[in-house]
Amino acid sequence: MDYSDLIEKLLNGNSRAAARLITLVENDIGAAENIIKAIYSHTGNAYILGITGSPGSGKSTFISTITKIFAEQGKKIGIICVDPTSPITGGAILGDRIRMKDNFSLKDVFIRSMANRGQLGGLARATEDAVKILDAYGCEIIIVETVGVGQSEVDIFKSAQTVIVLLVPGSGDDIQAIKAGIMEITDIFVVNKMDLAGADKKIADVMQMLQLKMNYKYESEKHDENNLVKSKWTPEIIKVNSVTGENFEQMIELINKHREFLNESGVLVDYQKNRIKSETIQILKHKISQKVEGLIHSNPTIDEYLRLVMDKSLDPYSMANLIVKLLGIE
Amino acid sequence: MDYSDLIEKLLNGNSRAAARLITLVENDIGAAENIIKAIYSHTGNAYILGITGSPGSGKSTFISTITKIFAEQGKKIGIICVDPTSPITGGAILGDRIRMKDNFSLKDVFIRSMANRGQLGGLARATEDAVKILDAYGCEIIIVETVGVGQSEVDIFKSAQTVIVLLVPGSGDDIQAIKAGIMEITDIFVVNKMDLAGADKKIADVMQMLQLKMNYKYESEKHDENNLVKSKWTPEIIKVNSVTGENFEQMIELINKHREFLNESGVLVDYQKNRIKSETIQILKHKISQKVEGLIHSNPTIDEYLRLVMDKSLDPYSMANLIVKLLGIE
Repeated sequence: MDYSDLIEKLLNGNSRAAARLITLVENDIGAAENIIKAIYSHTGNAYILGITGSPGSGKSTFISTITKIFAEQGKKIGIICVDPTSPITGGAILGDRIRMKDNFSLKDVFIRSMANRGQLGGLARATEDAVKILDAYGCEIIIVETVGVGQSEVDIFKSAQTVIVLLVPGSGDDIQAIKAGIMEITDIFVVNKMDLAGADKKIADVMQMLQLKMNYKYESEKHDENNLVKSKWTPEIIKVNSVTGENFEQMIELINKHREFLNESGVLVDYQKNRIKSETIQILKHKISQKVEGLIHSNPTIDEYLRLVMDKSLDPYSMANLIVKLLGIE
Repeated sequence: MDYSDLIEKLLNGNSRAAARLITLVENDIGAAENIIKAIYSHTGNAYILGITGSPGSGKSTFISTITKIFAEQGKKIGIICVDPTSPITGGAILGDRIRMKDNFSLKDVFIRSMANRGQLGGLARATEDAVKILDAYGCEIIIVETVGVGQSEVDIFKSAQTVIVLLVPGSGDDIQAIKAGIMEITDIFVVNKMDLAGADKKIADVMQMLQLKMNYKYESEKHDENNLVKSKWTPEIIKVNSVTGENFEQMIELINKHREFLNESGVLVDYQKNRIKSETIQILKHKISQKVEGLIHSNPTIDEYLRLVMDKSLDPYSMANLIVKLLGIE
């Protein structure tokens, strides 16, 4: 299929073309490949914010408020809501966001939901591609929001320059939940609903947890190159009220501070290199998995291996080795 | 390294050998390969239960109680607690489980914590391997517990024959959280803490959600082979009190009912086939990723591609294709 007409419209700022192209990259990696190839040279201008927080942390209101501020600055904004947890409730979240959309003029804000369609790697890859489409579409700020917290967010946030995690005063459950790998990639912790009792206590809790992380970091640095790069930044903590907008000015300043840090420290270049590496590896894994799954379903030799493993005359590792040989990539 | 001494001890029921071998498969896929090859023919006898539920659903007490019942039946039990969310808090969970251990004689129950060490695929793979070690060690029941809920559990539970999800009366948050892909693979829903108000309401909620799932299933079946296999079973729902043991007899009956269903319907064979396929694909992905990551860090041609992508003269998809060519697996 030829996407050049849609892509031309996209580059001219047509929102329906953007929506259509995102659907295409979501459903078909073949289409994604052609589309991204065509638009790639038009990307790299957007600033990408990753925002997460447990259910009840007020993500919708927070995003509405911050989006309004960016819109008032005359910026074109894209919002991608990613739900890695379920294909079922995609509709519910979408509904939420459509209500959110009422606050903005369609011209300035593009909102899109993406739900998991069974392949986690696929979702992260599709999100990366959607970000690129909105980038080429001309969005200056792209907000990637995920619900819940967990390892999947880490993959999804690989393209975010600044990662914000929302917490609320009260029970420590949200910190518990966020203890995830997401911790290590968070740049700004925002205690939302600062009017509730315990906001300062929550700030203290975050600081304590960061201390724990610092102690742990020494060990993790040995494992993860991305951590090393990110770790030069000390995460900021701020409390806000998303309903009244209190402290949002300071929070935007923190985002800008982080953005400047990325530019001036030279971290951004390392970071982009790592991002491209991990993106390429993701695409490769996807291509190779597809190939292998295709083989497993069609190749009689592999079917024979499968029978042998069922009989316990062969083990899965040896089967994997035999397939590696079959593929010729020893 | 030669593992034959440890493996001989394992097969003779030496728990320290089991612990040592699990550490080995956890830390090193090379060791895992050798160990699993050696023990694979001794596996396949354990019944594997996957248990999850949000924080506060009473997993520890539930597992203590069910373990006590199995131990009283004279069964040898293995418990693997998997925390996919964080490497940091591995210690805390371990502490929890050590307290749990006080309830049992060491002879009958083997308890082990596994935390995420940065690679999600790696954790699911390591858990699969730990299950096999405990299987070869002679455990008749292996409980794989995960904290929290999410896509990662789906991978981790691939080896579980019966998947149990714990819920508690009260707020609907736990159902919200569990809406994850885990929903589709749950065989028994257990409303724990049935003495609290709202237990029957929670059962009704689960039934409603299952109805939603049924409506959705038609579409999802087209995508996921595993679902097709599992979907022949209609999930059971039961309320229990883990502190008093109330309704546990009936719950064990439900587990047995599911076990019989798996055997008699022939589903087990399909299921094992799928399990081996997905395990092999996981191992393959790991091997191939390692190879590719190695190449990216050492191959000057790939470094050159990387520079081109940074300059936007090349895009990540084209880079992936060039690497596929370089690997010779087109």
